[in-house]
Amino acid sequence: MSSDIAVGFDLGGTNLRAAVFQGLRSGHAGVTTPLVQRREAIGDDRSPEHIVERLAKMVPELLREAQVGALHLPVGIGFAGMLNGKQGMVANAPNFGWREVPLGAMLRKRLGERYTASVYNDVNAIAYGEFALGAGRGSQDMLAIFGGTGIGAGAVIDGRLVEGANNSALELGHTKIVFDDSARACSCGLHGCVEAYVGGAALQARARQELSHKRARSAAIALAGGADKVNPGHLDAAADEGDDYALCLYSEVAPLLGVAIANAVTLFNPKVLVLGGGLLSRTPVLRAHVLAAFEVAVNPPALAGLRIEDAMLGDDAGLIGSALLASGAA
Amino acid sequence: MSSDIAVGFDLGGTNLRAAVFQGLRSGHAGVTTPLVQRREAIGDDRSPEHIVERLAKMVPELLREAQVGALHLPVGIGFAGMLNGKQGMVANAPNFGWREVPLGAMLRKRLGERYTASVYNDVNAIAYGEFALGAGRGSQDMLAIFGGTGIGAGAVIDGRLVEGANNSALELGHTKIVFDDSARACSCGLHGCVEAYVGGAALQARARQELSHKRARSAAIALAGGADKVNPGHLDAAADEGDDYALCLYSEVAPLLGVAIANAVTLFNPKVLVLGGGLLSRTPVLRAHVLAAFEVAVNPPALAGLRIEDAMLGDDAGLIGSALLASGAA
Repeated sequence: MSSDIAVGFDLGGTNLRAAVFQGLRSGHAGVTTPLVQRREAIGDDRSPEHIVERLAKMVPELLREAQVGALHLPVGIGFAGMLNGKQGMVANAPNFGWREVPLGAMLRKRLGERYTASVYNDVNAIAYGEFALGAGRGSQDMLAIFGGTGIGAGAVIDGRLVEGANNSALELGHTKIVFDDSARACSCGLHGCVEAYVGGAALQARARQELSHKRARSAAIALAGGADKVNPGHLDAAADEGDDYALCLYSEVAPLLGVAIANAVTLFNPKVLVLGGGLLSRTPVLRAHVLAAFEVAVNPPALAGLRIEDAMLGDDAGLIGSALLASGAA
Repeated sequence: MSSDIAVGFDLGGTNLRAAVFQGLRSGHAGVTTPLVQRREAIGDDRSPEHIVERLAKMVPELLREAQVGALHLPVGIGFAGMLNGKQGMVANAPNFGWREVPLGAMLRKRLGERYTASVYNDVNAIAYGEFALGAGRGSQDMLAIFGGTGIGAGAVIDGRLVEGANNSALELGHTKIVFDDSARACSCGLHGCVEAYVGGAALQARARQELSHKRARSAAIALAGGADKVNPGHLDAAADEGDDYALCLYSEVAPLLGVAIANAVTLFNPKVLVLGGGLLSRTPVLRAHVLAAFEVAVNPPALAGLRIEDAMLGDDAGLIGSALLASGAA
């Protein structure tokens, strides 16, 4: 590489974000602040051709804006979808309605020889960003758990991102935690996934449904201004006030996530466990219940010396991680 | 290294095994057949000094017997105990009554500069042997599960053994699979570990206890010649005949192991899943029940393209793996 400049994209279900970074691999202070950045709504036209065209036009615009003239540049894309193989083939991306779209190949063709485009799973890019320049910094073995709409995770072992044989490693949200006849249906089509209990979307949908019953009582209803507006933040505020409904719900679902995390730590034995996403950072009562169950269930040798850290890079982690991964791959 | 000769040890709870290999790293046919090998009972004197002395004396004896005169040789020890760090510090080895024994350092000091001694967890050594020269051959990402007295596992990602930040990765037997008040006690001191349900020792102890009740009925009792002699082989033969007790027991415990394996495959997304150990090779009815539950519970993207293979190297896997790992480390 002739340059220490890299472009990172974060292609999620709602927003398209992009940034140009300099010196990420040096690890010096301040390198995580982009030279320039941009955020746009993904919009309605989600055809592969349209998205590729937007990304390809944006790259030289951003570089001009950043007054960067490097000849060969790595471009990393963190993508909210399931990849197959290492060449950026999108197997399935419900947010985009894509199946079997060769995003990496399309981008490389459209961008030409000046750029080296690599596509990563968005959660993996976030995890790698946190590992290299955020909460996992200084370690070689990290497990990162992100609680949001769903439950995502990423892992780094011996300094290398774990992607799996077909890019589907670390699907913690789809490990099974209930496997009797009571197991709840998950959006993935199976039953009993941890995400079906304690992902933000599932938790919110369940609370709204249960609290819409005539005889339901919970402080969360008043806090939200209606049962149909309750979100995990309201549940947590209610739980903090000792609300029976919220505490009862938490006592059922928090241990499920705690045990799922404990089992992953028992298997990976990381040096650092990073916790991020709204559900693990902005709902402190839930988080405390999850961690209490985690500590009881984890294999004690894997707990010895484990650092538990909050994610540090916020929304920029995916941009940073994908730019950094692309820099290493280029 | 001046030589392609390596010595492997397998230091288990019952036997001390050793072998000298040539050309392991070439991967050619026949390299897994040792030049010479030895097996002895561990015996009663299990003091670190005594064990180190036996190993140290055995190395030159074996090399003389193999007519090998290389100057610098790697010596790998697969050890049935919990290690801390990469230098062969034994944190805890119940089979030997050891705590905080610097086995690696003691061996290196006693063996002198002619040899490079490295210590590995025994299950990791077995897994690495299967990966490099057995059932995982040709893959880069392997998960191996061994069902015996307990449930052990090992993983290789991108060609590298996963040991974890303090050498306790892949403790699949101690992932928690039951976490309500009914959870069974495990020998590790916690409750609800998969090994407490479907490890060979736990399964056998439970069956003997339950079948010793006056009113207990099972074909396994006659097959074993008494309730107190029932082992997993008898249970499996009984299950194969449609025995109610054995099938009822299996329907409870086999799914627990199946789900635990499914969750590990969901997290690691290996190319190859290797199944070994008596409990997964010599009890075919149990194995079939475990695999049926596995297939229902695993995240479908991690199942796509997954090869499920039987372990190939048998009792030699640990010798081969530790010799091979030491060769790479030397």
